[in-house]
Amino acid sequence: MKIGILGTGMVGAAIGTKLVQLGHSVKMGSRTVNNPKAAEWVKASGANATQGVFADAAAFGEIVFNCTAGMGSLDALKLAGVSNLRGKILIDIANPLDFSKGMPPTLSVCNTDSLGEQIQRSFPEVKIVKTLNTVNCHVMVNPSIVPGPHDIFICGNDSDAKAKATEILKNWFGWKSVIDLGDISASRGMEMYVIFWVRLWNKLQTVDFNIRVVK
Amino acid sequence: MKIGILGTGMVGAAIGTKLVQLGHSVKMGSRTVNNPKAAEWVKASGANATQGVFADAAAFGEIVFNCTAGMGSLDALKLAGVSNLRGKILIDIANPLDFSKGMPPTLSVCNTDSLGEQIQRSFPEVKIVKTLNTVNCHVMVNPSIVPGPHDIFICGNDSDAKAKATEILKNWFGWKSVIDLGDISASRGMEMYVIFWVRLWNKLQTVDFNIRVVK
Repeated sequence: MKIGILGTGMVGAAIGTKLVQLGHSVKMGSRTVNNPKAAEWVKASGANATQGVFADAAAFGEIVFNCTAGMGSLDALKLAGVSNLRGKILIDIANPLDFSKGMPPTLSVCNTDSLGEQIQRSFPEVKIVKTLNTVNCHVMVNPSIVPGPHDIFICGNDSDAKAKATEILKNWFGWKSVIDLGDISASRGMEMYVIFWVRLWNKLQTVDFNIRVVK
Repeated sequence: MKIGILGTGMVGAAIGTKLVQLGHSVKMGSRTVNNPKAAEWVKASGANATQGVFADAAAFGEIVFNCTAGMGSLDALKLAGVSNLRGKILIDIANPLDFSKGMPPTLSVCNTDSLGEQIQRSFPEVKIVKTLNTVNCHVMVNPSIVPGPHDIFICGNDSDAKAKATEILKNWFGWKSVIDLGDISASRGMEMYVIFWVRLWNKLQTVDFNIRVVK
């Protein structure tokens, strides 16, 4: 399958690398055509990995992953272009983390709104599925590094898009338990959880952890 | 031991009832001296249960539980009176949930501050320990209704107060795993988690659930 990745950070590289390993063709998009981090990733990833600007990656992908830093996501998606995204599934992994005041980070949007909702409102013709934002990028594509049962969460307004994203989470990335929290407004709780995650990270001194819902 | 409970809602009643069952003397405090919900609880709970205004309960307790609705907690604590609370442990269970715009609730404070921090700043001579706010009141005092291992979180600035609260959580309420997230600023993540909890509740259609941290 042809996949577009928006963002050249750790998350974009982890998702892109996994997808190439699975045999997909992946184009990593960034603000500039010769982004050095994307170039490094392309060099390491072989013939199925290419790079371009955000619009190239969005046009290339049958499915697109938003792996940009959350505070820049809306700008990046505008550059990606609505005509390149229309009708497609956009898997939104971004968290609107604001590190400008140091650690711990705060959220640039929360409580009465969320990044997932902002993206869906800005791109009504794109099928936004929020997921994977509650774990570190290593865990995203290799959940078995956290032992035993644990959960990943998903939300979005389009049932078919969520079903496809769930298939990707399970069959491609190896998630055994995917919990559907409903429409895109559940992004609010999923993104606010990340502030709790940061405290757990600080406590556990590792990013290789997750939670299991027990009932 | 003599315990003060601030608040007459489901949380106050659940905590108060458990403490009376354990043989403690409990005074439930409210805004008015003859609060009917407190009276009903006293009637059901026997000789070790009494009621009064917030100041009575705060003066009575060697340890005090804040079980008020979060948006009213600071006002309730002012009525309880700094002189009645000075030097004591205040176990803060409240969440600053704002239901005024309907469901799902939002938080009246979050992200750059939290209720736990506001209370600690307003009452610097009181040892605030935030805990139990991440589960339903039934689970708070009877964690075994959720099967298998799962976690409760705690934070606060005073180590001795946290050690005492941890003892209460483990020996009185039956919690097996108590995760200390650090100083009172961890209230931010613990309270923001509750917006995520509300979505899980909506999904699971039960309040009898919790999370386990897996690493």
